[in-house]
Amino acid sequence: LIKDVEVLNCEYGKNTIKFLRLHREGKKHFVKEVEVCTHLRLTSAHEYLDGNNSLVIPTDTIKNIVLVLAKKNGIPTLEQFAIDICKHFMTTFCQVAYVKTYVQEVPWQRLHENGVPHIHSFICVPDGIRFCEAEQCRNGPLVVFAGIKDLKLMKTTQSGFEGFFKNEHTTLPERHDRILCGELFCKWSYGECKDFDFDCIWNKIRECIIEAFSGPPDCGEYSPSYQKTVNSIQMLVLSKVSQVIETVLNNTFYNVVDMKNLGLTNDKEVSKCSKHNLPRLFRNTQP
Amino acid sequence: LIKDVEVLNCEYGKNTIKFLRLHREGKKHFVKEVEVCTHLRLTSAHEYLDGNNSLVIPTDTIKNIVLVLAKKNGIPTLEQFAIDICKHFMTTFCQVAYVKTYVQEVPWQRLHENGVPHIHSFICVPDGIRFCEAEQCRNGPLVVFAGIKDLKLMKTTQSGFEGFFKNEHTTLPERHDRILCGELFCKWSYGECKDFDFDCIWNKIRECIIEAFSGPPDCGEYSPSYQKTVNSIQMLVLSKVSQVIETVLNNTFYNVVDMKNLGLTNDKEVSKCSKHNLPRLFRNTQP
Amino acid sequence: LIKDVEVLNCEYGKNTIKFLRLHREGKKHFVKEVEVCTHLRLTSAHEYLDGNNSLVIPTDTIKNIVLVLAKKNGIPTLEQFAIDICKHFMTTFCQVAYVKTYVQEVPWQRLHENGVPHIHSFICVPDGIRFCEAEQCRNGPLVVFAGIKDLKLMKTTQSGFEGFFKNEHTTLPERHDRILCGELFCKWSYGECKDFDFDCIWNKIRECIIEAFSGPPDCGEYSPSYQKTVNSIQMLVLSKVSQVIETVLNNTFYNVVDMKNLGLTNDKEVSKCSKHNLPRLFRNTQP
Amino acid sequence: LIKDVEVLNCEYGKNTIKFLRLHREGKKHFVKEVEVCTHLRLTSAHEYLDGNNSLVIPTDTIKNIVLVLAKKNGIPTLEQFAIDICKHFMTTFCQVAYVKTYVQEVPWQRLHENGVPHIHSFICVPDGIRFCEAEQCRNGPLVVFAGIKDLKLMKTTQSGFEGFFKNEHTTLPERHDRILCGELFCKWSYGECKDFDFDCIWNKIRECIIEAFSGPPDCGEYSPSYQKTVNSIQMLVLSKVSQVIETVLNNTFYNVVDMKNLGLTNDKEVSKCSKHNLPRLFRNTQP
Repeated sequence: LIKDVEVLNCEYGKNTIKFLRLHREGKKHFVKEVEVCTHLRLTSAHEYLDGNNSLVIPTDTIKNIVLVLAKKNGIPTLEQFAIDICKHFMTTFCQVAYVKTYVQEVPWQRLHENGVPHIHSFICVPDGIRFCEAEQCRNGPLVVFAGIKDLKLMKTTQSGFEGFFKNEHTTLPERHDRILCGELFCKWSYGECKDFDFDCIWNKIRECIIEAFSGPPDCGEYSPSYQKTVNSIQMLVLSKVSQVIETVLNNTFYNVVDMKNLGLTNDKEVSKCSKHNLPRLFRNTQP
Repeated sequence: LIKDVEVLNCEYGKNTIKFLRLHREGKKHFVKEVEVCTHLRLTSAHEYLDGNNSLVIPTDTIKNIVLVLAKKNGIPTLEQFAIDICKHFMTTFCQVAYVKTYVQEVPWQRLHENGVPHIHSFICVPDGIRFCEAEQCRNGPLVVFAGIKDLKLMKTTQSGFEGFFKNEHTTLPERHDRILCGELFCKWSYGECKDFDFDCIWNKIRECIIEAFSGPPDCGEYSPSYQKTVNSIQMLVLSKVSQVIETVLNNTFYNVVDMKNLGLTNDKEVSKCSKHNLPRLFRNTQP
Repeated sequence: LIKDVEVLNCEYGKNTIKFLRLHREGKKHFVKEVEVCTHLRLTSAHEYLDGNNSLVIPTDTIKNIVLVLAKKNGIPTLEQFAIDICKHFMTTFCQVAYVKTYVQEVPWQRLHENGVPHIHSFICVPDGIRFCEAEQCRNGPLVVFAGIKDLKLMKTTQSGFEGFFKNEHTTLPERHDRILCGELFCKWSYGECKDFDFDCIWNKIRECIIEAFSGPPDCGEYSPSYQKTVNSIQMLVLSKVSQVIETVLNNTFYNVVDMKNLGLTNDKEVSKCSKHNLPRLFRNTQP
Repeated sequence: LIKDVEVLNCEYGKNTIKFLRLHREGKKHFVKEVEVCTHLRLTSAHEYLDGNNSLVIPTDTIKNIVLVLAKKNGIPTLEQFAIDICKHFMTTFCQVAYVKTYVQEVPWQRLHENGVPHIHSFICVPDGIRFCEAEQCRNGPLVVFAGIKDLKLMKTTQSGFEGFFKNEHTTLPERHDRILCGELFCKWSYGECKDFDFDCIWNKIRECIIEAFSGPPDCGEYSPSYQKTVNSIQMLVLSKVSQVIETVLNNTFYNVVDMKNLGLTNDKEVSKCSKHNLPRLFRNTQP
């Protein structure tokens, strides 16, 4: 059998540690339901090579630690909780060479009845999922990322796609008035962890994304391509944080239904959607 | 081979005719994206028995008709659109013995920037999906149903489950303060179709459901079981329409994590969810 | 508030009780992993109407009973296990008016190495999922159903659709050589429970379905429509059992890609699929 | 607004170009149904920065090219088809700086009736999905990868987890006889593309994986951890190819149900599964 192999990377951990943290202030209740993934890389790989488990922290223990930290510290913000988890593993276990934590929030919102907030009732409103990540190598900085995903946006005009490259395989017509629709993913970096108001920044960035996508409420803003809209989103996000890691606008095409052979003129009133694409842009700033 | 078989029911149709209907009033745009299923039963079953397709309306034609109706009539309300479809098939095709249409809405909401509504931009907010059904047998009344599904609600107190039947297989403890959480499905009947304000009633029923689930905003209302909460929801819905067809509260259990062997007292602050159950109640009124 | 309501049907229960039952014969292991749903209807509805839980068998107890029966009796066949569950609830609880159990199998198959069966290793092969149902009303017979679902079949020729009804909304061309592809669901009844060899019949019916769908291996058999193929499947299944409850061939259309404007003649070599339809037939026999 | 930004990576493309390629030899039919993703990076990013689309190859054109190549060349192997696509884009478009193609197969298998292969009928058997990737930078080598995913394996004994690291957060008991079950993902590299018999190697590697997971058919082989089993799989795969990129055994835990308070001794006969973990190992060889 083969002897001389080089282990490049070994990582293990617990995915989807899902739980709800309830916080009470008198009779008023606050909830954070989260899904946490925590992965580790150990300083050696004896468990892979020799079946020696003596340094392995069981994934069951990883789960227990995450729950204990939630119980003790609460979840003031997703980001602070991810930082707490990384710090705990780095401080407690000298065999940990690298730790990474992903935290995603279940979008519970407080219910309101006739404008009055309910003290203990909530509704799930998934209009953009908040997540964050924190990671640290031993002797390296603790780096924090945050993001939004599954944010579905649509504009029904002020979008086109023209002047593209053409050859014998081109069948797409030029369009200057089409529907633009997509599912947005955006992830940014806070760099080395400092004292940010994570909740405030996240909410501002969500507003930026929506504003850059849709333009002024009375007229919108023309988008010449998905790519340019992704760029506009990123430029606006960059005014709030130092680095955008990745923006994906997973677009959903709407094709105007051809009704000529049904004897009708369809003035872009009836469209059918098809889900297809994935334009991306990774980028960072040089301020 | 077998000769004497009785055909009890044969039905066919087109599922998931998904499209977007854009309506413009000047520069202001309105969208309804829907998924439509239309099923038919023909007066004979020759296509099954003899392979004679002469009376079969192809599912492709069904799709075309749905799109043509959307183009011509628009989608004033989901219910009116479902009625239009049923009436078209009954009126046009004498070989149709039964028609049923299901319409479900993609929950697009108009975007707002600083409180100002955007003229052509929308966001998807799936906090309860609206649907409706209409069906008609030849020579019978056209009956209309509507409903809401995928409405996820949670209350973190004012819920228990006690005094239940016990025997040697019982391991569930009695609880007077637990989390109540579930995904709600509710479907009601408008009876034979008259002039209802379908949008207004649907919104009022959604409010009723939330109110019955959560109770007054300052104190809530104690729920002694899922069943009783389902009943409360139905009683309140029944004050708006004549018949509730089905209410399902697909509950999600939250179990308080036992932290004793981790040296901690968990005062119901950390819970883990598990999705399991399906209590139901079908009912109608005798006014 | 409304007082006079009639409760038409109330049912509750536990869905997705998922577990694995291991049976050992010496060193040889046998596994059955199943998902069980058990629903009950009680003789009264006090828990809904008055919040009186005294007759309610908690869903947690239902789960315990299913696990205990699996431990004590094993799972000789899915059907026998469903029968055991129904009998237990009817016999043990006088407040149960109706019980229904659904059992679905995770399709583990024994691994083979060079033709030798492995004594304790298995692979998951989901090429058609086996399920069954049993139900009983108090003082009524125990009725057993079985079925197959998620069985995906395709034939690349010997299928057409011609001679169908046409009008101004018809755009579908006639075709005498198309791909026929679908996901099959078929459910049949064993009537009142007697001593059937459930495993043997299920396997024979699976063969019948495949045979009726595909025809002789050297030439196939022409299908003039989905409906006729569904009928052929049912006629063959009816030669094994007394009643076919429902057959659904959830078809997947393959449309030949038009390559004319790309300068190519596509002799049905390249097709794109779209998932759409649901032709059905409910039927039973009159022997 | 911000001016000085550095574009680190921009990539776009078409996901899920799904189609079926039919090949006929006389009356015998052969099918390959595939899902293709093709992504490009252009030499400039004007479409992002300036909205200048003149070099952009529309995703619609990408789709057309993939279909045309399938029509002209067929799909002799997934890997050869991915190579063809990459070569086409590099050769045809001087503005393409990088191309990457992913191809995944729908697992159709020829039907057999009483051992006789059917000439044109197929069944979908998803017991491990085959995929491949090819990528090329301008002036760089064309590199080919292949892999298997969604391969679900289980062994009901000859697996344990003992001697792991323990502290105050450890609650997991040591076990020397547990169920080992997981969903396997394995991806390897063929290095720069040469004349491999891709089909033959893929099948051999699938066999290796199953053999390494389960051990000899008459006795199995003891696994002291998921990690060691992943390592065994990789060592055996490395005997066939020069580099294993990534192996993930996404494990499914089975916990023996505690039946003591139900008055029963559960000799590991009844277990409940929970899906959780993701141990990984990236590695390559030094021959």
